[in-house]
Amino acid sequence: MQEFGKFDSVWVSTDHSGISECAQALGAKVYNRCCEHAVDNSTSISAVQEFLKDHQEVDVLCLIQCTSPFIQPEFLDAGYKLLLKGYEAVFSVTRDKKYRWRAVDISKNESTSPLNFNPERRQRRQEMQGELVENGMFYFTKRNLLEKGLFQGGRCGYVEIPSEYSIEIDSMLDLTIAEQILSQELLNLN
Amino acid sequence: MQEFGKFDSVWVSTDHSGISECAQALGAKVYNRCCEHAVDNSTSISAVQEFLKDHQEVDVLCLIQCTSPFIQPEFLDAGYKLLLKGYEAVFSVTRDKKYRWRAVDISKNESTSPLNFNPERRQRRQEMQGELVENGMFYFTKRNLLEKGLFQGGRCGYVEIPSEYSIEIDSMLDLTIAEQILSQELLNLN
Repeated sequence: MQEFGKFDSVWVSTDHSGISECAQALGAKVYNRCCEHAVDNSTSISAVQEFLKDHQEVDVLCLIQCTSPFIQPEFLDAGYKLLLKGYEAVFSVTRDKKYRWRAVDISKNESTSPLNFNPERRQRRQEMQGELVENGMFYFTKRNLLEKGLFQGGRCGYVEIPSEYSIEIDSMLDLTIAEQILSQELLNLN
Repeated sequence: MQEFGKFDSVWVSTDHSGISECAQALGAKVYNRCCEHAVDNSTSISAVQEFLKDHQEVDVLCLIQCTSPFIQPEFLDAGYKLLLKGYEAVFSVTRDKKYRWRAVDISKNESTSPLNFNPERRQRRQEMQGELVENGMFYFTKRNLLEKGLFQGGRCGYVEIPSEYSIEIDSMLDLTIAEQILSQELLNLN
């Protein structure tokens, strides 16, 4: 975020003193998140709206999720450039090459059917175009959308992130994988 | 495969002497794959059809892909039970919790739009139902479908595999991740 260099300020919203100290030590400001927005089922938008109420000067916010550790300054830069071109919301996506199937009740002997391909013309994974999915790394959004409770709305653009940089930490296994990627220097990281 | 115990025979189709020796040492039979079906752009179905021509006794085949190392006997058993219930093709899937977006031409300033959710009612990942995607681990298929060039057709059923067992090895990074999962004993493996 600091190497990207285009943010007027970088804030960490937390109610945890350890996270707060760590954030300040690394040069971020700390927003003391109210406990009602810091419970297990809190949504990101509630924390962002709380922050915006106290920061009327902000007209574009970029939510960066700490669960995406391999964010790079050039990814943010690509998003920023789209904002300047007039997009109102710009977020990170990655390309998923997956054959999807309809969920059915197998216990009732129902038969499933393909949703995004024709089994008579299967492609090898390497040849598939794939589908774009949010990877949760970052969300640039204009203030008026956030105030309506939206990270995405109006003219939406995206930045495609290579899949190897797109890992999201949702479990202890994901965390271990990310640590290994780091320790084995498998990515070109800034 | 051996612990599952319901296969009449287990074959490795290869044109590589090292793979062949390894397969036999572990108790599998070896089918000498013709070189025309063993090049980089060979499809799985071409190799399966070649095998079936030489094995008229096979009426149901289970293709197991070596790129899914965390296969467990109970996954195969669940698939086998569905075959006995009358499904003609049964394969492994996993649940993907992803927000998908339409691919557009960002260089032409086009705006994207959501494909499988409403941004006004975003759910947290933990709450999403998700979508079923093939994970490439195994495909049970009746002979008549395979002869038509299909792994899937007629009445199709699936076995849902927990995501942590669903890793597919497509790159060196994937291989390193799989090795780490193994070495750190992060899964309950048979």
